[in-house]
Amino acid sequence: MRKLILLVCLAAISASAGAQSAEWWKNRSRIETDSLYSSILGDIREYNIYIPQNYDINTDKRYPIVYLLHGMNDNHRGWYERGHLLDVMDLLTGSGEACEMIIVTPNAGGNIYAGDWNGYFNMPGWAYEDFFFKEFVPYIESRYRVISDKGHRAIAGLSMGGGGCTSYAQKHPEMFCAAYPMSALMMIPERNAAAPARPGDKMDLLTRSVIENNCITFVTNADEQTKEALRSVKWFVDCGDDDFLLDCNIGFFQAMRAAGIPCEFRIRNGGHLWEYWNDALYISLPFFTRCFGESR
Amino acid sequence: MRKLILLVCLAAISASAGAQSAEWWKNRSRIETDSLYSSILGDIREYNIYIPQNYDINTDKRYPIVYLLHGMNDNHRGWYERGHLLDVMDLLTGSGEACEMIIVTPNAGGNIYAGDWNGYFNMPGWAYEDFFFKEFVPYIESRYRVISDKGHRAIAGLSMGGGGCTSYAQKHPEMFCAAYPMSALMMIPERNAAAPARPGDKMDLLTRSVIENNCITFVTNADEQTKEALRSVKWFVDCGDDDFLLDCNIGFFQAMRAAGIPCEFRIRNGGHLWEYWNDALYISLPFFTRCFGESR
Amino acid sequence: MRKLILLVCLAAISASAGAQSAEWWKNRSRIETDSLYSSILGDIREYNIYIPQNYDINTDKRYPIVYLLHGMNDNHRGWYERGHLLDVMDLLTGSGEACEMIIVTPNAGGNIYAGDWNGYFNMPGWAYEDFFFKEFVPYIESRYRVISDKGHRAIAGLSMGGGGCTSYAQKHPEMFCAAYPMSALMMIPERNAAAPARPGDKMDLLTRSVIENNCITFVTNADEQTKEALRSVKWFVDCGDDDFLLDCNIGFFQAMRAAGIPCEFRIRNGGHLWEYWNDALYISLPFFTRCFGESR
Amino acid sequence: MRKLILLVCLAAISASAGAQSAEWWKNRSRIETDSLYSSILGDIREYNIYIPQNYDINTDKRYPIVYLLHGMNDNHRGWYERGHLLDVMDLLTGSGEACEMIIVTPNAGGNIYAGDWNGYFNMPGWAYEDFFFKEFVPYIESRYRVISDKGHRAIAGLSMGGGGCTSYAQKHPEMFCAAYPMSALMMIPERNAAAPARPGDKMDLLTRSVIENNCITFVTNADEQTKEALRSVKWFVDCGDDDFLLDCNIGFFQAMRAAGIPCEFRIRNGGHLWEYWNDALYISLPFFTRCFGESR
Repeated sequence: MRKLILLVCLAAISASAGAQSAEWWKNRSRIETDSLYSSILGDIREYNIYIPQNYDINTDKRYPIVYLLHGMNDNHRGWYERGHLLDVMDLLTGSGEACEMIIVTPNAGGNIYAGDWNGYFNMPGWAYEDFFFKEFVPYIESRYRVISDKGHRAIAGLSMGGGGCTSYAQKHPEMFCAAYPMSALMMIPERNAAAPARPGDKMDLLTRSVIENNCITFVTNADEQTKEALRSVKWFVDCGDDDFLLDCNIGFFQAMRAAGIPCEFRIRNGGHLWEYWNDALYISLPFFTRCFGESR
Repeated sequence: MRKLILLVCLAAISASAGAQSAEWWKNRSRIETDSLYSSILGDIREYNIYIPQNYDINTDKRYPIVYLLHGMNDNHRGWYERGHLLDVMDLLTGSGEACEMIIVTPNAGGNIYAGDWNGYFNMPGWAYEDFFFKEFVPYIESRYRVISDKGHRAIAGLSMGGGGCTSYAQKHPEMFCAAYPMSALMMIPERNAAAPARPGDKMDLLTRSVIENNCITFVTNADEQTKEALRSVKWFVDCGDDDFLLDCNIGFFQAMRAAGIPCEFRIRNGGHLWEYWNDALYISLPFFTRCFGESR
Repeated sequence: MRKLILLVCLAAISASAGAQSAEWWKNRSRIETDSLYSSILGDIREYNIYIPQNYDINTDKRYPIVYLLHGMNDNHRGWYERGHLLDVMDLLTGSGEACEMIIVTPNAGGNIYAGDWNGYFNMPGWAYEDFFFKEFVPYIESRYRVISDKGHRAIAGLSMGGGGCTSYAQKHPEMFCAAYPMSALMMIPERNAAAPARPGDKMDLLTRSVIENNCITFVTNADEQTKEALRSVKWFVDCGDDDFLLDCNIGFFQAMRAAGIPCEFRIRNGGHLWEYWNDALYISLPFFTRCFGESR
Repeated sequence: MRKLILLVCLAAISASAGAQSAEWWKNRSRIETDSLYSSILGDIREYNIYIPQNYDINTDKRYPIVYLLHGMNDNHRGWYERGHLLDVMDLLTGSGEACEMIIVTPNAGGNIYAGDWNGYFNMPGWAYEDFFFKEFVPYIESRYRVISDKGHRAIAGLSMGGGGCTSYAQKHPEMFCAAYPMSALMMIPERNAAAPARPGDKMDLLTRSVIENNCITFVTNADEQTKEALRSVKWFVDCGDDDFLLDCNIGFFQAMRAAGIPCEFRIRNGGHLWEYWNDALYISLPFFTRCFGESR
């Protein structure tokens, strides 16, 4: 009788195989964990990277790339372990809703309460933004077969990483064709900033760096040339109606609209939650796919 | 006080303008009705065509094209008047979910009970399929600025037109990159076919033509070369759980899977209804956009 | 051969019949147009009403009711002719997503530029709000088999009618279990209000009435008892990201949140468009169904 | 500066509190793991149970209940650890899409290759179905404040548990108001069944039990009285287009339709995957909520 179960399983495998390609099992999509040494940070930094199916077979093919940023107190594994990035990509590429792409999640965090640095901006002792643009991006795009141009490079992130992705795309609109901040920490109000609780404390430095990289005032203060550059990026802002960061996302959207910079905006059901961000993958990855498609 | 309302309206216009382009109002998207003379049919045939925004401004730009087929007893105006194609396209292109494209709905129908011909296949006295491929497609693609290649040409249709779009893409896989049949009449069972009620009657001829162009047996009987050609088309079958044509759509999908031809399949809520087909536009037009994107 | 088509049709009918009840065809759902004389308005007012399937068979059954308000320059037929209310209800009740209910669309409009009155509030010469609560609701709920309690009465509306439904539920929280404003005109700023363009003009009177019934300041100024009453209504605010009324909907939601009154909030893709409102039916009618369900 | 982050967090907490109830933090929803001793199975069986918010405060309140079954080689923790049931319920109850309910996931599995029993049916040495109805349901519904009637009891499950939930509701339609099988193992074909690989092996016994409890032939062979009883349950079948079990789900739906038993049917994008089942919670829990609502 065991054969019956085997028959069922074989049917499954052959059906899947038929539905995709005869060699799908030879080289499945996967998440790899790897690291690089950063002279800027003086340390080894890990990252996770989504490698599409058949990457090792189609050795001439180059892929678009998404930089996907995590939130505070999280790290490069969050999008894999709780965001289920691998499963989502398999589903979306299976139906064609997402194209084959490389997705990399750098580590800009850890447990801040246990002394780990957190944050995507430069701060005294942690020049993460320099690391990202001078070391990380060049390393990734030379080591993996990436199409290294604006039209095939996008950025997304959640919470602290949503602010990071927004600010990165604001400062480097020539690098990214699209940005998708989720539940983003777009700013922290400046009040009380004059009196740091514990100067030099990593949380204080992180807070200060977010204050200095206010994504809303960046838009408000932009000159016409900057606005025109920002219009070359496709923007999509996504935040839950119960999210404690909702108001700064509304503020960002209103500033973009006032500046005449096209920006999609969605408020969906939910708060500052992984269920929300898992869902956001189903919107952002097809969005990036369309943006990449326009550049082919 | 009237000024207040005016202020609100002006705010609306300027906001929309800002969100898109400064000249959006110069050349809006539109539906045009026009016609051509067919020597094959010996008659003038009307069609509706969706012209994207700025078509008359960007006079060097060429566009992908979708052929969108109506159902029995309907005509070229149905997708506009009840499917609300113009409104849907404005919404989807506004958010980038659909790219700018030309969409043409030919007239292959009318009131069959009042004596109008209906049907997408050749039948004695109504060689519509010949007309479509020999006259209609060449006419449209020379008169409008269409990208005339497989990678930028797709076909969709509902009910009788769902069967039509499937059969057209089966016989001309070198012409279409994607096909999206909705609630499709994939076949009519052959029983009783020997005894036509009224030989020569237009309904009899239509029925006979659908029997002869069985989309399921086409797949079942396909040789390996034909199957390989069919694999070059992206297929998406969409039918409601209350649709009286559901079983033949299931049969078609199962035949495709057995033949190893990738085919997306969805059963959503509903019957043989315009609400269903209006919704199907929100799935099919982004699907085509992704297919076109891969060909750029 | 005609028999073949007939066979298909019969299959359809029997399948549908099987899927629902053996008598579904005896008494289909329908939209009726009727009217009543209003002594308050001194005129006959028309309305459309959605009558659920089997209403005339289950003559003991009473139904929940939704008051569904149209926008400016529209009338009681809009939700039927362009909102496709009948089709949507058939689809949603077929799958159980919406329960059987009565839905009435009163006429509070017409062509304001041709001299028709528009508006849901009292204004000199057009005491529509009085008419609605003193004549229309009592008439409808005595003429049709409605469950006349708060737990089974809800209100929704679009644009001008979105403001109307919000204001009605604010002033009569004891009457409605739920309110769903779509793309709502929540307020008009008061500036310039001192200088009416043409005093007594119907557009001026309408504008003035909206200014006086500001839905946001109603919340901001509410005392604790009023807030507590507002908490007994389930609120759902829905507005498109391209809608020129978005900001006042954001303002309303923020005021509700500040007042501690639970309120769902969604920003979906789109502008001030029927495609948006048609979609909103697919969210609001299941929402009302759940609210009615809690009261059984 | 730390205060700034604290301010943000406090804002979040107060906003959430305001949006729900002043005491939400006193008694959050939770998943508990517990166990009972089964004399039928001669062993202790664990289960997980979702306890709604404020369960310990509203000590007079009784709740509807959902029995949620896992798949082969999984156990009672799967719906929590990978299905993220707690997060989904918090999201859906927050917006009202799901009502407060108790959800219990019994353990009918483990690692079958390591010798654990698996399966929802009676088999020699593992009378699980007896345990479920004679011990488990009575225990749960006496220990927790459940509304113990058909109108407030529903059942769902995935894969092997999808077949289990279907069969349970078929044999006990007087107990369940609704059933929602996901990617269900509705049957195993009988061929080869005469020659068990290793008689008495747990996999063999499981396979045999599924063969004996064929959900499709149950419908096909049902007499009119049984069909009428099955019509008192609301059925919803949900399976992915890439699922290797799709055909038996299609077969089940077609049998139900032929028998005149209303049954919703959806084919969505995906295969036999947790991403699919996590999504299915967003459909099934609101579906159950509507079913419970009709019984109040």
